[in-house]
Amino acid sequence: MAERPQQLSHLEFLGDAIRFSNQIHALIPKCALLENFSPAEVRLLAHFMDVYRAEPGMEIIREGEGGDFMLMMIEGRVEVNKRDRWNTPQLIAQVEAGRVLGEMSMIDGEPRFATCVAVEPTLIAVLDRESLARIIVEQPLLGAKLLMELVLMLSQRLRATSERLLGLMDEQAQRSPSLM
Amino acid sequence: MAERPQQLSHLEFLGDAIRFSNQIHALIPKCALLENFSPAEVRLLAHFMDVYRAEPGMEIIREGEGGDFMLMMIEGRVEVNKRDRWNTPQLIAQVEAGRVLGEMSMIDGEPRFATCVAVEPTLIAVLDRESLARIIVEQPLLGAKLLMELVLMLSQRLRATSERLLGLMDEQAQRSPSLM
Repeated sequence: MAERPQQLSHLEFLGDAIRFSNQIHALIPKCALLENFSPAEVRLLAHFMDVYRAEPGMEIIREGEGGDFMLMMIEGRVEVNKRDRWNTPQLIAQVEAGRVLGEMSMIDGEPRFATCVAVEPTLIAVLDRESLARIIVEQPLLGAKLLMELVLMLSQRLRATSERLLGLMDEQAQRSPSLM
Repeated sequence: MAERPQQLSHLEFLGDAIRFSNQIHALIPKCALLENFSPAEVRLLAHFMDVYRAEPGMEIIREGEGGDFMLMMIEGRVEVNKRDRWNTPQLIAQVEAGRVLGEMSMIDGEPRFATCVAVEPTLIAVLDRESLARIIVEQPLLGAKLLMELVLMLSQRLRATSERLLGLMDEQAQRSPSLM
């Protein structure tokens, strides 16, 4: 990658992800993004990623900040917290190796939606917007595959979130029929 | 497109979208998918799409069905309904020209999330999965752009839906603190 994201400067930089391509390849069964990747494609993709290590308690992504990278968890465990209306952080998820984080801000440039904190020693492979653009130009088929998988992943998250939202709205309507 | 989707056989087929590329180009300001498209790219994309007309009352997409196409509304108005837990259709949105529908099933192959019914004479430009695959192979840069816009659109919808879900969960927790 051209320049290391400043937001990750407190993490230990472990270099190019190519050294980790076996470990990344082993993530395929639990990683929505890599589902249809061959070992050769994983190696190609790894060329465009860098690896960092976060110790327990370290923030990897901070809600509200800018940040143009996404990451794939290679190992470890991360808590995802989002501030509620009283500005109190609420745990919204615990995620593990294979999980992709930060893809929304990488794509749309909006502030981070939630804060991600390592709760175990955690290895992450980072891809920034510039590298994604390079993949698209230099390896168009790999780029299309990666984008297709991103679309698929987001689409499935959107389905799940919409189902939950509509379920909750249903419940609410049932409890307070006068509001309908 | 190779074969017309059987699910659209009750709509009037108006042929290749190239004839409509001026109209499609005029959608850019209100169409998340076309945001960064040039007139030349719109024409190129139109080569891969077909146009249909739906009369008021006609279903364009039916919840629970299969379907491997997405569509862009060129003109008209569509109601989006989803069945609640009692199987009663509930209006969840009214959408207009520029709106993209059906992209989740096109991408992930899962059943349609909701039913879309024309409430005015409605023109739609349809892109199916096979045509998307052809774009990626024959016009890789256009393919990457289209996928990038799809990722952006889904990411923004996911942000909005997640905000609403968390807001509602907050409210619920506040009203029934014993459940926390």
